[in-house]
Amino acid sequence: MTMKKLMITGVSGFVGHHFIQYLYDNNIKLEICGADLREPTYRLEQYRDRLDICFSKINLLDIESIRSVFHKFTPDYILHLASFSSVAYSWQHPADSFVNNTNLFLNLMTVVGETNKQCRILSVGSSEEYGNVITEDVPIKERLKLNPSNPYAVARVSQEMLSKLYVESFGYNIVMTRSFNHIGPWQDTRFVVPSFISRIRSIKSSGVSEGTIETGDTSIIRDFVDVRDVVRAYYMLLKDAKSGSVYNICSGNGITLKDVIRIIADKMHVEIKTKVNPAFIRPTDNKIIIGENYKIFNEIGWKPEIPLEKTLEDMICQKD
Amino acid sequence: MTMKKLMITGVSGFVGHHFIQYLYDNNIKLEICGADLREPTYRLEQYRDRLDICFSKINLLDIESIRSVFHKFTPDYILHLASFSSVAYSWQHPADSFVNNTNLFLNLMTVVGETNKQCRILSVGSSEEYGNVITEDVPIKERLKLNPSNPYAVARVSQEMLSKLYVESFGYNIVMTRSFNHIGPWQDTRFVVPSFISRIRSIKSSGVSEGTIETGDTSIIRDFVDVRDVVRAYYMLLKDAKSGSVYNICSGNGITLKDVIRIIADKMHVEIKTKVNPAFIRPTDNKIIIGENYKIFNEIGWKPEIPLEKTLEDMICQKD
Repeated sequence: MTMKKLMITGVSGFVGHHFIQYLYDNNIKLEICGADLREPTYRLEQYRDRLDICFSKINLLDIESIRSVFHKFTPDYILHLASFSSVAYSWQHPADSFVNNTNLFLNLMTVVGETNKQCRILSVGSSEEYGNVITEDVPIKERLKLNPSNPYAVARVSQEMLSKLYVESFGYNIVMTRSFNHIGPWQDTRFVVPSFISRIRSIKSSGVSEGTIETGDTSIIRDFVDVRDVVRAYYMLLKDAKSGSVYNICSGNGITLKDVIRIIADKMHVEIKTKVNPAFIRPTDNKIIIGENYKIFNEIGWKPEIPLEKTLEDMICQKD
Repeated sequence: MTMKKLMITGVSGFVGHHFIQYLYDNNIKLEICGADLREPTYRLEQYRDRLDICFSKINLLDIESIRSVFHKFTPDYILHLASFSSVAYSWQHPADSFVNNTNLFLNLMTVVGETNKQCRILSVGSSEEYGNVITEDVPIKERLKLNPSNPYAVARVSQEMLSKLYVESFGYNIVMTRSFNHIGPWQDTRFVVPSFISRIRSIKSSGVSEGTIETGDTSIIRDFVDVRDVVRAYYMLLKDAKSGSVYNICSGNGITLKDVIRIIADKMHVEIKTKVNPAFIRPTDNKIIIGENYKIFNEIGWKPEIPLEKTLEDMICQKD
């Protein structure tokens, strides 16, 4: 019996790394092809004693490169993580950001249609698709009207609409997510929580027991879900979800950024005060984003298992 | 005082022709640049005694061509009619159709941003954006959740989301429409009503007093609005509408295709029977599409003025 083939686009990033780690830890037997524009930020070799894994350095904007990879490796599953995912970049280059996101996806769909339309695809979306929500709509359910308010979010909604269409009208096998803020070890310090940790660590290691960090609005409430819970959800959705469905992936709990900072400071045994730097405040930021995860629990049995305290502890103690 | 400059993309088609005719009939003074991939299907010369109008043969997929036109002619108004508007083509080439529609629009927005962000733009959308609606949601109001069910419709929804974003976040000046089935003289016989007329005319001119035409499902109900009412709405929206708003353009009345055929046959004094050809039935066709036009009436004062009987009469009697 031949092993099933899994392709992971955007394998070189934070989520790709954790997905590989999940397959490794659970000894899941698949033939894996990781595809990305850039080399992984981690060593693939460390996984090769248990995983059959290769890496293809390709640009998904070039459909011929995709065809050539699929010619040698026709996947049964695709975890489609690749995207131009920077909201900031999308503000600066809206046209470029939009077209590149939807183009990546459409190129991939075209080649899937040419090779194996039954391939199960996970199309990863974002809680950004909901845009500004009013308090009565929290916790956010999947049926809430989408109201994307940055170019990246519009591209994500378009990808979701296209996914639905490819399922309903062309018989593709696609599951969609709206993933909320995920955090965890190995996350880049450009993101909010790792940036808090990094700056608090600097204060700590300078030998003082208190300090101040500059922040944006720390009263905003976010739903942070551990990336290790997220990749477990992705695996379960790839295996068991209903084609054409869309699922929130979230903790279901909200916390203010202020409280996140307090927990981190407590764990590191320093006193941290915050000072608002107006330059860090984004005018369009939602006051409150909390998702509801009942649908994925009900249909697939997934629920988050790692409490935020544990996530933050692991991020503080992480080894690179 | 210099005249205001209006650019019409997709000027060579059915709606572009009627818009020019409207400006001519109402002696509206504007400097006009019509842009299209192909030459107009009508003679621009016939309008030049009253209109200051030039034609640029360009492909909006090529951003440098747009830049070069805008360099000489920086518009104050853009009526953006150009699109890859065939639903049938979008089924056959979903990726191509989607990218081309959104690319046209994004190229245009990019060049508008480089030259005159205050330019007033009318972004023309389609009732196709609503997709399959349930009877309780008829007549369809603008606030109904969009549910696009073909690749062309997804592209139209994406264009609308992008328009909203360009207004809210980048300060552009864009008004959007969802235009329902428009019909009128000069419409191509690929479309449903002109095709009925053309086939009934053939029967009539063969000298017999009765005949049969093959159709799809003639029990479906559609909202037909006269193209001359549509272009008047476009002009009024360009002048007076609120940036960031979206408006249904529709008659507000529904009629079955069966009744349309009956009216045409009566006017041409022939007996027409219909025979269903299963090949003409589209499985995803809505049973009933009727729009509500209260918003545009309330905000802009537009309402349709040409009754369907008159539209059909003019189509039957049209001279090419």
